[in-house]
Amino acid sequence: MTAKAAKRRGDERTASAAALLNATAELLSEATNIDVSLNEISQRASVNSAMIKYYFGNKEGLLLALLERDAETAMASLKALSDMDMPAQKKLKIHINGIINAYYKSPYINRLIHYMVESGSPEASRRVAQIFIEPMIEVYRDMVAQGVHEGVLKDVDPGLLYYCLVGAADHIFHAGYSVPATLGIERLDDGIKQRYAELVCDIYLRGLAP
Amino acid sequence: MTAKAAKRRGDERTASAAALLNATAELLSEATNIDVSLNEISQRASVNSAMIKYYFGNKEGLLLALLERDAETAMASLKALSDMDMPAQKKLKIHINGIINAYYKSPYINRLIHYMVESGSPEASRRVAQIFIEPMIEVYRDMVAQGVHEGVLKDVDPGLLYYCLVGAADHIFHAGYSVPATLGIERLDDGIKQRYAELVCDIYLRGLAP
Repeated sequence: MTAKAAKRRGDERTASAAALLNATAELLSEATNIDVSLNEISQRASVNSAMIKYYFGNKEGLLLALLERDAETAMASLKALSDMDMPAQKKLKIHINGIINAYYKSPYINRLIHYMVESGSPEASRRVAQIFIEPMIEVYRDMVAQGVHEGVLKDVDPGLLYYCLVGAADHIFHAGYSVPATLGIERLDDGIKQRYAELVCDIYLRGLAP
Repeated sequence: MTAKAAKRRGDERTASAAALLNATAELLSEATNIDVSLNEISQRASVNSAMIKYYFGNKEGLLLALLERDAETAMASLKALSDMDMPAQKKLKIHINGIINAYYKSPYINRLIHYMVESGSPEASRRVAQIFIEPMIEVYRDMVAQGVHEGVLKDVDPGLLYYCLVGAADHIFHAGYSVPATLGIERLDDGIKQRYAELVCDIYLRGLAP
């Protein structure tokens, strides 16, 4: 095989792997649980199901690769935000909007994290903590310290803040089935998501003031 | 059978059903998911596993009965709180402490609600909305209206408030596996639960002030 042909072959492979990840993300977004079959995924991706084994080993490997891809994007923006020269309150506001948008776009993220941690292998569980939780706590620690220094935030435990903020941001999407009973609408849309983000920002920015 | 014997037989049945519900609650509290087998439950309860079929029909029926029992207690206290002659802010504070204590004591509640709604029958899903979500929204509506009237709460959408408050109260227990990474402790205890409840109360009471 020439170098050019090898490169083309490599590109095709990357494209198949990406198609499988995209199909998995789509199917998980449409579903209310993580019971998506490898067959459905390969059909949606128009990629032979043997390729899942080839690229990812098994379903756990595929789901972990999807989480890693999502985490990479999310944590890169979070780190960039944290490093910006900007008041802590503004960072917090951008961060709250950012996680609400992420859960709105990919409502499967926390469902998948819980699944990997509760039913996955110990390595998968450790990996999830490494790629999602540890970088977030790091940023929360910096953000709270900066806000305390600026005199705009109370000195709260960053770990406890993490739970009540992520829980608040996530629950409406995680518990989307209950929307008819709570809000009297069929399903969540951009308008509700926006109103929700404004409410959460308002509660947390004022609630965390010294 | 004499009336006395029939009553004794009835009491024994009720005791077996209660033992099965208690065993299920215990096993679910110890587990990180809802994969608890009927065998484990009947062994823990020291009740023949055929009795599960007799009393509850199947596993879904047993889990639904457990949720109904938990909901009955929780919703009765919530309704009593709502009806009390007490300022809205104090009601909100007692309510926040109440749900955090409930999730701490029975961390399986929201996991079970999600499971019933996502994987259960349509009837189970409707029943869960009826017993948990509708009564809570009703109380949130009254509490917000009272607080607005007293001039101590902003006029927020009770449905949106429900999600961000329940999410905040629940996530630390739902995501208990992450506690070593976030808080540097092995597992949640009374002290952390108390500090968490104080933080959530403080954020929401100040964050919801007009």
